[in-house]
Amino acid sequence: MRIILDGMGGDNAPADIVEGAVLASKEMEHEIVIAGDEALISAELSKYKYDKSKVTILATTEVITTAESPTKAIRTKKDSSMVRGMQEVKDGNADMFLSAGNSGALLAGGIFVIGRIKGIDRPALGSTYPILGSGIALLVDAGANADVKPGNLLEFAYMGSIYMKEVLGVKNPRVGLVNLGTEPGKGTKILKDAYPLLENSGQKKLINFVGNVEGRDVPFGEADVIVCDGLVGNVILKLTEGLALSILSLLKQKFMTNVKTKLAAVMLGKQMGEMKKEFDYSEYGGAPILGIKKPIIKVHGSATANMVKSGIISALPYIEKDVVGTITEHVKELKAIEEEQKEEQTEEQNKEEISS
Amino acid sequence: MRIILDGMGGDNAPADIVEGAVLASKEMEHEIVIAGDEALISAELSKYKYDKSKVTILATTEVITTAESPTKAIRTKKDSSMVRGMQEVKDGNADMFLSAGNSGALLAGGIFVIGRIKGIDRPALGSTYPILGSGIALLVDAGANADVKPGNLLEFAYMGSIYMKEVLGVKNPRVGLVNLGTEPGKGTKILKDAYPLLENSGQKKLINFVGNVEGRDVPFGEADVIVCDGLVGNVILKLTEGLALSILSLLKQKFMTNVKTKLAAVMLGKQMGEMKKEFDYSEYGGAPILGIKKPIIKVHGSATANMVKSGIISALPYIEKDVVGTITEHVKELKAIEEEQKEEQTEEQNKEEISS
Repeated sequence: MRIILDGMGGDNAPADIVEGAVLASKEMEHEIVIAGDEALISAELSKYKYDKSKVTILATTEVITTAESPTKAIRTKKDSSMVRGMQEVKDGNADMFLSAGNSGALLAGGIFVIGRIKGIDRPALGSTYPILGSGIALLVDAGANADVKPGNLLEFAYMGSIYMKEVLGVKNPRVGLVNLGTEPGKGTKILKDAYPLLENSGQKKLINFVGNVEGRDVPFGEADVIVCDGLVGNVILKLTEGLALSILSLLKQKFMTNVKTKLAAVMLGKQMGEMKKEFDYSEYGGAPILGIKKPIIKVHGSATANMVKSGIISALPYIEKDVVGTITEHVKELKAIEEEQKEEQTEEQNKEEISS
Repeated sequence: MRIILDGMGGDNAPADIVEGAVLASKEMEHEIVIAGDEALISAELSKYKYDKSKVTILATTEVITTAESPTKAIRTKKDSSMVRGMQEVKDGNADMFLSAGNSGALLAGGIFVIGRIKGIDRPALGSTYPILGSGIALLVDAGANADVKPGNLLEFAYMGSIYMKEVLGVKNPRVGLVNLGTEPGKGTKILKDAYPLLENSGQKKLINFVGNVEGRDVPFGEADVIVCDGLVGNVILKLTEGLALSILSLLKQKFMTNVKTKLAAVMLGKQMGEMKKEFDYSEYGGAPILGIKKPIIKVHGSATANMVKSGIISALPYIEKDVVGTITEHVKELKAIEEEQKEEQTEEQNKEEISS
């Protein structure tokens, strides 16, 4: 297999991207192609010993920065590392593309360069979410779609479920719908309509739906796949990040109170380090763009070489287990569930009209 | 003034409610009326020494439980402590009503028994939100309205702003709109339309609008008034609660690792206690229902006597500063801002139609 890496995206590019590629090449047999400025990438590569047949360069001349308008950047910068890398995957010359660059551009590229899986209305960003002390969950959508329809949430649930199972290795992952109460009739009009869709797909064994989950349940891992719109998903991810930071900072403050607490802090050094690491969801590999025809992975913007490496290695099952193929194969069943609901709603409306 | 307290609502009713009333009566000159089962309340009151002219009973025969359907409970249980208490306030026999009971029923009662302020479309629940190490913010809406319109968010912003200023004592409170990015064009259709409304009301000095705030900014106190729909608000509150609990539990686990860490935990005992208390947003007084004609306060369901007392005392400015009067007076200005936007949008549409 050939994996393409965006050599120019992310805070630490190209240095950490190149080092991450070299590290990954030592742990797997697949070829890694780094797309980007040839001189810069070569200079970085020259720092390491590596198998030259396994790490190569795809020379490109343009760079998409994080400040740029995503759609415009994708449409105009045809020779950027991002567009060229995705084009290679689209053309079948490579199997997966990873980038630590502009998330919006990566998503736009996923839709415009790679293309949606037929029948999937809205591709979504999946993001790992740390469950303190016990692993990770997958949150879909992590911010790609602010406005969604009930059917989109069903798609998110199914795609997240397959990814969680095949790539993150959780058997029969529990899927929860984020809501303000656990009862089925709770929430917005969209959530009320999404609930029976997810319930129905649960009865058909497409997903393992465990019902609504509240904000309180999310950090305790009540669901392995956390389904929500992109606004709620973004708020969950960023609030978690902000709270972890503010709690750690308060903890540090408490540790600095006096000589006794300072000593206690020293005694807890190792445990505090472990704890800080558990918070860091960027440690848990990349974020897949789900619902497009090829595997595309967003790597954390400030990824270090080790994170780039683990991003690559941990995403391999996205190709090997043919997650895209499984989604493509089952789209019709998702559509059938939506159609069924529409039929029922129309029937109910007709009944109401007749009886009124 | 006369304050009415729901003697039958909450996990610790009537014991802690009655004790809280007695404690409050010692710190203020106003009369407290406890609505509820006369025998039960009398029995509790007999445990304390108190000024009998300042703590009295309003005998009622029914109780609304947390399991009941809110609207149905309010409509059918006319002699419940909740409905009777609110009726007293509506009739002008008392100035404020507080309850630790069924939140939904309290909200329904606020709308159906007390009534909306003319021009306010959707009353909202305000909830204090702990900013670790530096105080509190007010979150509106905390869960009363899952689906909102842009104009509702403007109302939440204004009402929250007045409450924050007059009751919680923050001068010129900074109002932030929860979104998935800080730029004005971000988010859902509703957030995109709400932004200019809040911006306009900022220019007119009705509020101090600081723009969009992301989930990450919320725990750091980037806004004093956090404006969002009831779904996002509920997720923010409950996720914060869940995360705090899960982090404290992980911390406890780390403390138990070995003899050294156990000793460190003992050395940090005082500081850990302080920290736990900072998390506890239920410590910070009650939650107002904003946008109805009289002051109604939701007290935390598991409130202890001290929390009931501080809930009463801290809410007094809701009456004294005439928050309801201020909102009532400015509703027209809010409506004018909404009308202005509608006019602009219509004009733009007309222009587009002519030019196309």
